[in-house]
Amino acid sequence: MTDLVEDLKALIRIPSISRDPAHAADVAAAADWIAGRMRGAGLEHVAVMPTSGHPAVYGDWLHAAGRPTVLIYAHYDIQPPEPLAGWSSPPFAPEVRDGRLYGRGASDMKANLLLPLGACQSLREAGGALPVNVRFLYEGEEEVGSRSLPGLLAAHRDLLACEHAISADALQLGEDRPGLLVGLRGSAGAEVHVRSAASDVHSGRMGGLLPNAALALARILAGLVGPEGRILVEGFYDDVRPVSAHERAAMAALPDDSEDLRRAVGARALHGEPGFTPRERNWIRPTLDVSGITAGYQGPGNRTIVPGAAHAKITCRLVPDQEPARIASLLRAHILAHAPAEVEVTVNASGQRAGRPYLVPADHPALAAAERALARVYGRQPDRTRMGSTVPALSILREELGIWTVPFGFSLPDENAHAPDEFIRVRSLERGVQGFRALLEELAR
Amino acid sequence: MTDLVEDLKALIRIPSISRDPAHAADVAAAADWIAGRMRGAGLEHVAVMPTSGHPAVYGDWLHAAGRPTVLIYAHYDIQPPEPLAGWSSPPFAPEVRDGRLYGRGASDMKANLLLPLGACQSLREAGGALPVNVRFLYEGEEEVGSRSLPGLLAAHRDLLACEHAISADALQLGEDRPGLLVGLRGSAGAEVHVRSAASDVHSGRMGGLLPNAALALARILAGLVGPEGRILVEGFYDDVRPVSAHERAAMAALPDDSEDLRRAVGARALHGEPGFTPRERNWIRPTLDVSGITAGYQGPGNRTIVPGAAHAKITCRLVPDQEPARIASLLRAHILAHAPAEVEVTVNASGQRAGRPYLVPADHPALAAAERALARVYGRQPDRTRMGSTVPALSILREELGIWTVPFGFSLPDENAHAPDEFIRVRSLERGVQGFRALLEELAR
Repeated sequence: MTDLVEDLKALIRIPSISRDPAHAADVAAAADWIAGRMRGAGLEHVAVMPTSGHPAVYGDWLHAAGRPTVLIYAHYDIQPPEPLAGWSSPPFAPEVRDGRLYGRGASDMKANLLLPLGACQSLREAGGALPVNVRFLYEGEEEVGSRSLPGLLAAHRDLLACEHAISADALQLGEDRPGLLVGLRGSAGAEVHVRSAASDVHSGRMGGLLPNAALALARILAGLVGPEGRILVEGFYDDVRPVSAHERAAMAALPDDSEDLRRAVGARALHGEPGFTPRERNWIRPTLDVSGITAGYQGPGNRTIVPGAAHAKITCRLVPDQEPARIASLLRAHILAHAPAEVEVTVNASGQRAGRPYLVPADHPALAAAERALARVYGRQPDRTRMGSTVPALSILREELGIWTVPFGFSLPDENAHAPDEFIRVRSLERGVQGFRALLEELAR
Repeated sequence: MTDLVEDLKALIRIPSISRDPAHAADVAAAADWIAGRMRGAGLEHVAVMPTSGHPAVYGDWLHAAGRPTVLIYAHYDIQPPEPLAGWSSPPFAPEVRDGRLYGRGASDMKANLLLPLGACQSLREAGGALPVNVRFLYEGEEEVGSRSLPGLLAAHRDLLACEHAISADALQLGEDRPGLLVGLRGSAGAEVHVRSAASDVHSGRMGGLLPNAALALARILAGLVGPEGRILVEGFYDDVRPVSAHERAAMAALPDDSEDLRRAVGARALHGEPGFTPRERNWIRPTLDVSGITAGYQGPGNRTIVPGAAHAKITCRLVPDQEPARIASLLRAHILAHAPAEVEVTVNASGQRAGRPYLVPADHPALAAAERALARVYGRQPDRTRMGSTVPALSILREELGIWTVPFGFSLPDENAHAPDEFIRVRSLERGVQGFRALLEELAR
C-alpha cells in the first residue's frame, strides 16, 4: 500500500480546483498525472480528452474476450480548500496522522479514483489479465456540475460502449459496515414572478389600493405546501412509485441519524410530510422547497412602500417515477391556477432529463456483483441505501449511454468532504483495492 | 406680485437639499435667507435656531393684544433634483414659462412658505398691525423626516405657545377648487424573522427534514390579510372610529381619481378591503402591507437549498383611533400565535406616538376659519379631504405642543413635487397671499 499512499500524496499536491479559473493549469496537470497513472496500471489508448471546460482522461484494457466491458467513472477535480484557517495541516501538503491521510480531495475523491487503477495493476501484475474488459473515464468537472460530460458522452458513445458502469465516487456506511447507494432523488425547479405595478409605490399614496406583490407571492407560496408538510400541487404525487414494506423495513433498521442531522444544522426541530420517517422523507419522498424570495425593501430599517414586484425560486426533489418536465408543468399550472387575479404572475418552470430521479433496478446484475464483492471484503452483507440529493454524473451516464451506474467507493461519511481537515483512512485504501479486485471478478461471472 | 416671484426665484437658486450632506452649507444659506425675509416682513425676534441637524428659523409678531396667537409652520428644505435629465430648464435656475415658475422646491414648498410672510408684510404695510399674534417656525428637515423637530419643540415650548397652528405645506384640490386636508393616516411597523437552521442547508441533504424558513414566513404573511383584502390580525379593527355616512357621501362626491392612480403606477388592477371605495380604502381605512421579504438565494439561476432564515418587513397605515403601540403589539401577538411550531419566530414591532393617525376635530375653530378664508378667496366652499400617508411634522406638533395644525397652502397636485420639472403656478402666489390674509383675519374672530 505504500505506493498507493505516495501516489495519493502526489495527486493531492496538485490543487485541481475546477471552480477557480486560476487553477485551470493545475486541473490540466492533474489530468496529465492521471493519464500517466493509467498507463502505469497497464491501460491502453490512454488519452487526455479536451472538452469545452476541463479535460477528461480515458484509458482502457479490452483483452478479456467474451467477457463484459465495465466503464469506471470518477472525477479528479476538487472543492476549493477554504476556509484555510480550519486546516490543521496545509490542504495541499498531504500528511498522515494516526492512520489518516489529510489533504483536500483525500476523501472526495482522489483516494477512490486510485483504487480501481490499483486493482487493475495488481491483477495485471499477478496474472497478466483482467477478468473483464475495462474502460476508465475520469472527468475534471464534477464539482462544477459535470457540465461538459453530456457532450463528451454524446461525442464518444462508441468508445464508451459497455455492459456495466461503476462510479468510484461513493461512500461506505461505516468502517465495518458496507453500503451500496442505489437511489438518488431528481430535481425540478421554477421561478415565480409577481407584478402589481411598474415599480414599488409609496404606501401612503397607494396603500389600500395597489395589490401588494409580496403578499400575493406569500399567498401563492403558502398554498404550495400544507402546514403539515404535504405538497398541494395538483398531481404532484401521481407518479410516485410505491416503496415496498420490505424496503421501508430495511430503511428503518439503519441507525437513526436524524438527531445528529438536526444538531449539525442548528435546527430547533425537523419537519416534513406526515406519515414518513425523517429518512424516508429524505430518501423516498419528493419535496418542494422555496429556495429564495426577493421583494420590496430589504435594507436596514423599514420603508413605507407597497412592493410592485416579488420573486421566488422553488426547487423540488423528485423520486421515481416523477418526470422533471411533468413536475415543472404541474407546478406552473398550479401556481397560475391559484394566482390572485389582481396581480400578474409568470412562472418559469424547468425540469431536465438530467434531473430525473435515479434508482438502480433492484435486480440489476451489477448491483448483485457489487453486493457480493463488498460481502467478500467486509464479511457482511451491505445495506442498500439512497440519498436525498442528485449526482448529475449518474443521471448523465443514464441519459447519454442508457446504462445504470453502480456507485462503489470507500470513503466514509465523517471524512470532512468539502470541509477543512478532509482526510481518508489509510486502511480504506487497502480495502478499496481488494474491493475493486473482487468487483471486477464478480462482474466477470 | 413681482416681488414675490423674484423672492421665490432667489430662494430656489439656493439648493437646500437636506438629504445630501454636501449641501449642508446651502441649507444653512437658505435658513439665513429665510431669516432675512422674515425681518423684511416685519417679524421680530428672528433667529436661526441650531438643531442637531439643519437649523430652523423662528420669528414672531406679538403685538395684537387680546388676540389669539397663531403658529405658522413650514419647511425650506427640498428634495434632490435627480433625475436631472428630466428637467426642461435647470432645477436651480428658476424660469417662468406660460404662467408657471419652474424649479426644484417651487411647489414643495418654497412658494408656500413665502405666502404667509407676504400676507404679514402686506397687512403691516397697509395698516401697521396684524389681526392676530403670529409665530413662524420654518424647519430645514421635513424632507428627511423632521428628525430634529421633536427636540426643538420640546426645548422651546414657551417660545412656541399658541392657540392655533397652521402648516403652509399643503395643496388645493384644483385651480378653482379649494380643499382642506383634515386627516392623515398614522403608521406602525414590524420586522419578522424566521429561523429554522444556523444557515441555509443543501436541499439534497435536508430537503424533507428541515423546516423551510421561507415557506414558514410565507405562511405567516399570507395569514395576516385575507385573500379579499381584509386584515386578519386579531383586534386590528377594534379601535377604528366609524366614519359618518355624511363624510362618506362627501368623499363619494369628489371626482374619482382611482383610474388615474392605477394607470400612473402601471397596475393591472386596484385591490383592497371589500366594502369600501378606493378612496375610502386610502383615506379612512387602515392597511397592512408587506414592504419587503428576504430569504435564501436571490441571484441568477437557482440553488438547491432550504433557507435557514427568512425576513420580512411590514408597514401599517392607521386611522383614528388606532394607537400605533397597540397595533404593533397586536401584530406581534398575532404573528407569534400563528407561527409554525417547528421554526423560531421573532418579531420586532414598533408603533411610535409620532405615528398616530391625525384627524383635526371636525368642529375645530381653526378649521372653520380656514374654511371661511378659502371660501372668500375661491368663492366656493372647500372640500374637506384626507390623505393616505403621514406627515411627521403635523403629528410631532400635535404630540409636542398639544395642538392641531391645519394645513393651508396653495400648491396643486399636478405640479411635479419630488419630480423633474417641478413648478408652481404664478397665479397661485397672489391667491395664496390673499388666502393667508383672509386666514389671519378669520382666526382673529
